Amino acid sequence: MSGNTIGVLFKVTTWGESHGPAIGAVIDGCPPRLDLSAADIQTDLDRRRPGGLASASPRREADRVEILSGVFEGKTTGTPISLMIRNADAEGAAYENLRNLFRPGHGDFTYQAKYGIRDHRGGGRASGRETAGRVAAGAVARKVIGQAGITVTAWTKEIGGITALTLSLAAAEASPLRCPDPEAEKKMIARLEETRAAGDTLGGIVEIVVRGCPPGLGEPVFGKIDADLAGALMGIGTVKGVEIGAGFAAARMTGSACNDPICPEGFRTNHAGGILAGITNGNEIIIRAACKPISSIARPQETVDRDGNPAVVTVKGRHDVSVIPRIIPVCEAMVSIVLADHLLRQRAIPPMQIPEQG
Amino acid sequence: MSGNTIGVLFKVTTWGESHGPAIGAVIDGCPPRLDLSAADIQTDLDRRRPGGLASASPRREADRVEILSGVFEGKTTGTPISLMIRNADAEGAAYENLRNLFRPGHGDFTYQAKYGIRDHRGGGRASGRETAGRVAAGAVARKVIGQAGITVTAWTKEIGGITALTLSLAAAEASPLRCPDPEAEKKMIARLEETRAAGDTLGGIVEIVVRGCPPGLGEPVFGKIDADLAGALMGIGTVKGVEIGAGFAAARMTGSACNDPICPEGFRTNHAGGILAGITNGNEIIIRAACKPISSIARPQETVDRDGNPAVVTVKGRHDVSVIPRIIPVCEAMVSIVLADHLLRQRAIPPMQIPEQG
Amino acid sequence: MSGNTIGVLFKVTTWGESHGPAIGAVIDGCPPRLDLSAADIQTDLDRRRPGGLASASPRREADRVEILSGVFEGKTTGTPISLMIRNADAEGAAYENLRNLFRPGHGDFTYQAKYGIRDHRGGGRASGRETAGRVAAGAVARKVIGQAGITVTAWTKEIGGITALTLSLAAAEASPLRCPDPEAEKKMIARLEETRAAGDTLGGIVEIVVRGCPPGLGEPVFGKIDADLAGALMGIGTVKGVEIGAGFAAARMTGSACNDPICPEGFRTNHAGGILAGITNGNEIIIRAACKPISSIARPQETVDRDGNPAVVTVKGRHDVSVIPRIIPVCEAMVSIVLADHLLRQRAIPPMQIPEQG
Amino acid sequence: MSGNTIGVLFKVTTWGESHGPAIGAVIDGCPPRLDLSAADIQTDLDRRRPGGLASASPRREADRVEILSGVFEGKTTGTPISLMIRNADAEGAAYENLRNLFRPGHGDFTYQAKYGIRDHRGGGRASGRETAGRVAAGAVARKVIGQAGITVTAWTKEIGGITALTLSLAAAEASPLRCPDPEAEKKMIARLEETRAAGDTLGGIVEIVVRGCPPGLGEPVFGKIDADLAGALMGIGTVKGVEIGAGFAAARMTGSACNDPICPEGFRTNHAGGILAGITNGNEIIIRAACKPISSIARPQETVDRDGNPAVVTVKGRHDVSVIPRIIPVCEAMVSIVLADHLLRQRAIPPMQIPEQG
Repeated sequence: MSGNTIGVLFKVTTWGESHGPAIGAVIDGCPPRLDLSAADIQTDLDRRRPGGLASASPRREADRVEILSGVFEGKTTGTPISLMIRNADAEGAAYENLRNLFRPGHGDFTYQAKYGIRDHRGGGRASGRETAGRVAAGAVARKVIGQAGITVTAWTKEIGGITALTLSLAAAEASPLRCPDPEAEKKMIARLEETRAAGDTLGGIVEIVVRGCPPGLGEPVFGKIDADLAGALMGIGTVKGVEIGAGFAAARMTGSACNDPICPEGFRTNHAGGILAGITNGNEIIIRAACKPISSIARPQETVDRDGNPAVVTVKGRHDVSVIPRIIPVCEAMVSIVLADHLLRQRAIPPMQIPEQG
Repeated sequence: MSGNTIGVLFKVTTWGESHGPAIGAVIDGCPPRLDLSAADIQTDLDRRRPGGLASASPRREADRVEILSGVFEGKTTGTPISLMIRNADAEGAAYENLRNLFRPGHGDFTYQAKYGIRDHRGGGRASGRETAGRVAAGAVARKVIGQAGITVTAWTKEIGGITALTLSLAAAEASPLRCPDPEAEKKMIARLEETRAAGDTLGGIVEIVVRGCPPGLGEPVFGKIDADLAGALMGIGTVKGVEIGAGFAAARMTGSACNDPICPEGFRTNHAGGILAGITNGNEIIIRAACKPISSIARPQETVDRDGNPAVVTVKGRHDVSVIPRIIPVCEAMVSIVLADHLLRQRAIPPMQIPEQG
Repeated sequence: MSGNTIGVLFKVTTWGESHGPAIGAVIDGCPPRLDLSAADIQTDLDRRRPGGLASASPRREADRVEILSGVFEGKTTGTPISLMIRNADAEGAAYENLRNLFRPGHGDFTYQAKYGIRDHRGGGRASGRETAGRVAAGAVARKVIGQAGITVTAWTKEIGGITALTLSLAAAEASPLRCPDPEAEKKMIARLEETRAAGDTLGGIVEIVVRGCPPGLGEPVFGKIDADLAGALMGIGTVKGVEIGAGFAAARMTGSACNDPICPEGFRTNHAGGILAGITNGNEIIIRAACKPISSIARPQETVDRDGNPAVVTVKGRHDVSVIPRIIPVCEAMVSIVLADHLLRQRAIPPMQIPEQG
Repeated sequence: MSGNTIGVLFKVTTWGESHGPAIGAVIDGCPPRLDLSAADIQTDLDRRRPGGLASASPRREADRVEILSGVFEGKTTGTPISLMIRNADAEGAAYENLRNLFRPGHGDFTYQAKYGIRDHRGGGRASGRETAGRVAAGAVARKVIGQAGITVTAWTKEIGGITALTLSLAAAEASPLRCPDPEAEKKMIARLEETRAAGDTLGGIVEIVVRGCPPGLGEPVFGKIDADLAGALMGIGTVKGVEIGAGFAAARMTGSACNDPICPEGFRTNHAGGILAGITNGNEIIIRAACKPISSIARPQETVDRDGNPAVVTVKGRHDVSVIPRIIPVCEAMVSIVLADHLLRQRAIPPMQIPEQG
């Protein structure tokens, strides 16, 4: 991974700023002859749009993705797929008071330090809006791994310290918080409301499960699939921790408890989270990503201006209370992109049979 | 990161199997005119050799590294640095009983699934021995970041559920467990002894701190420095979780508590762990890596053979009780390698002044 | 170089098909705080538009480039620069007769063989139109190398076997063929007219000169600057040969004649073309690229259809007689992109001084 | 290609200096379960050892390659293959007079300019000796492409202006100059003898033919197979020009003559040299590389020392008269490496069937 590109064979590059003309992604290396339409991508994009309990913004018209290349008569051609989403209401003027102030918890200070210049409007390149490009590319990755029977599903494991204790996928699907435990969901809602009222925000934990992944994906040493998954998820702005299988709990286990015994039917347990020595073992891959609370809070905060003078910053406008559940499709997208790349690297997708000519 | 290479400008490739003729690393992109000798590298290598409380092997003669290229008259030349360590006592015959058995918790099953062939002796490529190549390369990376005043130090945060509560670097240096809290160390030692007696193993947590890192290292989106650090650490065989700054605890904080206020003297707190939006902010970088217990235990375990028949595997020989503290220099090496690469990418090391000719 | 991306630090990805919605390029790694506007890029794009003696198309309204990201208030920000050019008159229906036919000399057959699907309209991804994205990206590269005082200029060395014998840059600038020798230009024009009348096409040779390049750019072995330049130029669809300095003529020289003697003022000759052992020596870099005749000719040609049946293909519409001079800005763009990348890799551009804060 | 590594999936990194302890290569990405022994590699290495008409050195004991990793019980395992050749007689002292002098035509000046330090002994990293690592890696690449029925063969097309006019592979095999035309060979020998007597050196042209290559290898735009081949060959120190198919002659052809008509049996001619739009068309791939005369001549030459003072340099010792034929296996190696990489990228090698377990 370098700069704004991820992947070796299935390569995704995203571009764009929160309040520039548009954002987008280029996917290079997608196999040819997959069915692909803007509607396929739109479905995933709609899942990350604002609205719902954790969100402050009223549900507005969804972003519209445009496929600019790489698809011909409804099928991918093997050439780069360029996706673009116009930034509709780029009201940059609303951010004028932040031009010379660094918001705590945001990239304002570090972008200024690195580049000596930054687009301060809405966080510029560091905005969560950039993830729309990832979700769009992730929708294409899903198609690729879907060919091999692989699915990626994520849900809310925890918000504000309240943990989902039961796991019902149906409940998660039905839940505005994508919470798989209806009892926990009620408490999460109450916690979100009370936090919103206090002008504050909450963090949480997303759990991601990959099903149907064949054994053999991943490479030794620096191309391990758990390394790539951890890098991809830690590359989401809000994520401060990633764990696989038993994760941090494994640090407190004994070897005899942690090792997954093998029997003719498979592994008896799954503390490894589906990955051994960096290579998938055919089990479910289980990952958790810890998300910090949203940095934009409705309270005045201590900071400095570009000249280093003390200042107080107040972030105007309405902001979400928690990045969950909107971050969930982003986590799914990143995992799907990594899996698509490793699937191609492992040559697990057979070269599609080209119809005989004649 | 792909396969066995990490880095964009400071690129490290490791090669070698546990019981092959040798292991080693090639470093491409090291700046020229740094002082470098085998002795410099040997120091770090010696820190990961067996011996000590968590180790079962008696302290033996250290591996000897040989510099095969890239150094001329004691200085790096800018060309690839090839490092080799011969495998002295490759008694592969001792592993004959494991040729067709898959040890639980090891890469035996997944290497077989991926490649259809594997060097079963001592874990082959998936052996912890491979990390000697990383430590050797890390010693070179340390030289590079040292030029910029950056240091990387790691210690034992936790073993077998016992946590170091105080932090004394001097204590860590003096401790055979690299534990910075003498009280905790005593309990850890007792826990290790009792676990060894039970034929079992323990996991733990390593904490790594980077000091002196300038602001501005890291790139947007997929080249974030936290993403690269997480990927590099998760790429160590034993690591199942990585967190930065407040990490998983951030998921339970409110925004007002988690945001680090900025004042003219710097950041008042460091929940961000020195990284904002994927770019260093000048603060200490703080990372924790969760290590699972060593998979080789002295008890019989349920498994299958290559033909899928039920079997019982008993791993012979003496094995360490915990990967900590031997994993500590490996963690330091990986962090140093990632920092060296980003330092060069950021062009934070000025092109060294070439002495005027004449 | 892989797929549709070139470069290590200054990375250019192009996307788009001749008759899709748009074509474009994403530049990742451009240094921040360079002045950049759409007008800067438009100048280079205009140089490759049709019209003139070698061209069959009447001069039409130029392509309009849109900067979608990476520029804020007229300056680059260091984040990816996304450039898009809409395909205005995509009259794909005109190509319906080519849907199942392979035009000799074109990529029709090989794209079908590789992908089992292709956008047949106007050559799809293999169309010369794709080079507009390269020229747009090249205009940004020119800005980068311009900072270091490097210029890239190309001209017509040969068309249809007629060679420019004198070199007047002013003459080349004034010439519709970019021919630096007015006498040769007259013969070239006559040759082009007579070839057009015969329904045929011509090849030629472009000569490219780089001035102001400091010594030290390029890397040993596989990152040699002549290797990268040759790869970049051979990656232009029309190019079948590349030579540097004395090039093929060097194969017929003796060592005593070919070696460039060194004196205190510099090199006495420049048979090396400014590159020794893959690294620039401070001299002018001289490169020549051999372009084949345009494959689309106005005569019926023998071919087969997708079912392998014999067929005759007649390429409709008006086509250029020679790819020269329209290919010239493409050659300049590719050379500029390679130089920008190596300049950043060599860290020859000092990290721009960030104005003190306070 | 960057630095000292080439390839995307079949990656070769070479390391080592002419008079350091050893030289070598690491191959990452070789498919598993290929038969491989040191003897397989030795055969190719022996073809580039000195001796013969164009050579000044008496035939000495061949370099001995050692396989340090990636091979288990005679088969590749899919992990990195490390190859090492010790530098036997590193008599660096013989080069002491060149420590501060820049030999014309060599990399002495440019390495000094780039790095401010260089191993002056025998050219250091820029020595032709480095190519032994490439030939060793090329021998492995040959195994990979051999699986798909692809062969790479090169011969002497021209030395000192004398051209081979007939092509007999048997004659080339039997010829000490690898010249396929016995009549031309006689003249070449005379020319070499007379040049040696004059203390001078000669250049020449190598022709390389790839047979059995399936259609579909290569990628659009920047991953074209002709681009990668040109880059790989131009990355050989001695090469100053590369052409494919009709090459520079195509620049003087008309479209109607240059286009290769297609009939049900295939292409009627092969001016394209087996590549259309950067992708193989199933025809023979034909490439020519122009080699400059060897820069080390037995005559005093004008130069400067490191302080810029005028000096005369005399290269001691016996040197070859022409880099041909010793460069031929190097050309074959580079072409084989590029083809192996593209073969894997195209997934043209089916994932090898892993024997059922049980």
